[in-house]
Amino acid sequence: MNDAFALARRSLGGLLLAALSTRAALSQTGTDPLPSWRDSPRRTAILDFLAATTTEGSPAFVPQAERLAIFDNDGTLWVEQPLYTQVVFALDRVRALAPQHPEWQAQEPFRSVLAGDRDGIARAGTRGMLEIIRVTHAGMSPDEFHVLVEDWLRQARHPRFDRPYTQLVYQPMLEVLSLFRARGFRTCICSGGTVEFMRPWTGRTYGIPPANVVGTTLQMRFENGRLVRLPELDLNDDGPGKPVGISRFLGTLPQAAFGNSDGDYEMLQYITEGSGRRLGMIVHHDDAEREYAYDRQSNVGRLDRGLNDAARRGWHVLSMRDDWSQVFPS
Amino acid sequence: MNDAFALARRSLGGLLLAALSTRAALSQTGTDPLPSWRDSPRRTAILDFLAATTTEGSPAFVPQAERLAIFDNDGTLWVEQPLYTQVVFALDRVRALAPQHPEWQAQEPFRSVLAGDRDGIARAGTRGMLEIIRVTHAGMSPDEFHVLVEDWLRQARHPRFDRPYTQLVYQPMLEVLSLFRARGFRTCICSGGTVEFMRPWTGRTYGIPPANVVGTTLQMRFENGRLVRLPELDLNDDGPGKPVGISRFLGTLPQAAFGNSDGDYEMLQYITEGSGRRLGMIVHHDDAEREYAYDRQSNVGRLDRGLNDAARRGWHVLSMRDDWSQVFPS
Repeated sequence: MNDAFALARRSLGGLLLAALSTRAALSQTGTDPLPSWRDSPRRTAILDFLAATTTEGSPAFVPQAERLAIFDNDGTLWVEQPLYTQVVFALDRVRALAPQHPEWQAQEPFRSVLAGDRDGIARAGTRGMLEIIRVTHAGMSPDEFHVLVEDWLRQARHPRFDRPYTQLVYQPMLEVLSLFRARGFRTCICSGGTVEFMRPWTGRTYGIPPANVVGTTLQMRFENGRLVRLPELDLNDDGPGKPVGISRFLGTLPQAAFGNSDGDYEMLQYITEGSGRRLGMIVHHDDAEREYAYDRQSNVGRLDRGLNDAARRGWHVLSMRDDWSQVFPS
Repeated sequence: MNDAFALARRSLGGLLLAALSTRAALSQTGTDPLPSWRDSPRRTAILDFLAATTTEGSPAFVPQAERLAIFDNDGTLWVEQPLYTQVVFALDRVRALAPQHPEWQAQEPFRSVLAGDRDGIARAGTRGMLEIIRVTHAGMSPDEFHVLVEDWLRQARHPRFDRPYTQLVYQPMLEVLSLFRARGFRTCICSGGTVEFMRPWTGRTYGIPPANVVGTTLQMRFENGRLVRLPELDLNDDGPGKPVGISRFLGTLPQAAFGNSDGDYEMLQYITEGSGRRLGMIVHHDDAEREYAYDRQSNVGRLDRGLNDAARRGWHVLSMRDDWSQVFPS
């Protein structure tokens, strides 16, 4: 048997095994691993990817110790409209801190925040947001910040859905996280949000422990026996910062990535250009009725380049409206 | 039964359980979990700590998901004399790159490296070493650097022991790593070395996967679809940088820390000042015959403040000479 034939035979065998394994996964337990997903090419892509990478003998088999799947957070695992949740937290903190800062009444972006002037906040742009994050997130230890986040999450409600933010996670994505973990994948977050905003609650909400959370980091200093968060960015884990964060924190190239905006473009590119079987998927928000519909024109979670290039790059674009039978947990 | 009495009873019960559990750990398997450790207060401290934190009902019990132990690398898990291994790697790289840099013949610290002038290198100090690390570690992707490290490790030999560096790990510490993992602890490295110098081999050498390696990081940029390491430090994960690295990468406070030099002082302080049961241990190199003897006067792995303050801070100082029956793997 010559080499080419042996390879073809092995590949074919692998494909068959993979196909059988997908069916087996469904029939073994007798339950659907993705009950909130309607039958669609995206659902099939996920199951095929898992079968190919986790079935022994498959040419795309990945040893369990190396299996890694990465998920953007805002707009991919939980709601990001009308504003990123961490921004809502930061704006609430500005209001809470304002009495100690009378100068903010005349100083942007704080003036706009305190006046509830959405356009003013928008005009302040990314720089304004970073300024707000600096003053609301620094000057304390990570533990003290953790307490602020937990306290806020307990009382904050989403303006449209009137539910705590940690209940506005996507049920179909919770199922994806569970399914990947059941198939031996380590599931990690890679978010533009700061690690310390996410770590307090990702364990109970997503089953993702603190060390599996990659995100934006602030500078810190250890002084007088304690850590203090400084008002300076370390890594801006967004766009081209995401591959840096993944490499720096995890040191391993994931095989699968889920995102939803152009802030995930480089992450998807970094992961799907790697050799071996890869899965890149984009959550397209096209469901104004159950959630939101936005893409190219949105200031929050803009998806433009990703839509243009998805087909060429082999990324799957899922339709929230068509692919998900349920959006939020009951 | 009043509260104080209930508490006393629970504590006593916990202590008894812990003591029984230590004996049980030894007798259940019939094998000694630390065969290269002689009986000593340090060995007892390790076993007592594990019993107290992993025995259900013990007042110091730590749920498995939160168990985390952190280990310095150079001088704690492997040999750091006569020079830190990453420095040896960097000096070898300078020699390999020198033909492309004729200007180095007249430029410190490179002149001294190429002339084999140890005193000249020493005079260049930390800044000189950082300069060397910058030119030998940057301008490539993490994957390309990974290959350089693997290639070097395959051929490099320690000047005194004539063994590959990855064989000059401490057998007693390998046993500690295994024992902690057997008791449900996640074992992580926190090193002044760069993460990308360690991650290629810590899995096979220590059983510590890439994401469990905290260390010094360089700036990186994602451009043209690939990551490039830049010649600028991000985090200097040494001294007060170690608590920052642990918090940033892992997001959880470890319960145990092992170090050997003053570069580990703040890490030990950060961890042992936390509430709850803690273990801080220092490897004291006092074994010139089997390894090296150095502390307060050494340029490499200096241990001075740590020796002064260990008793006051409750850190255990182990004697390599007295506490370890074997130093390296057979």
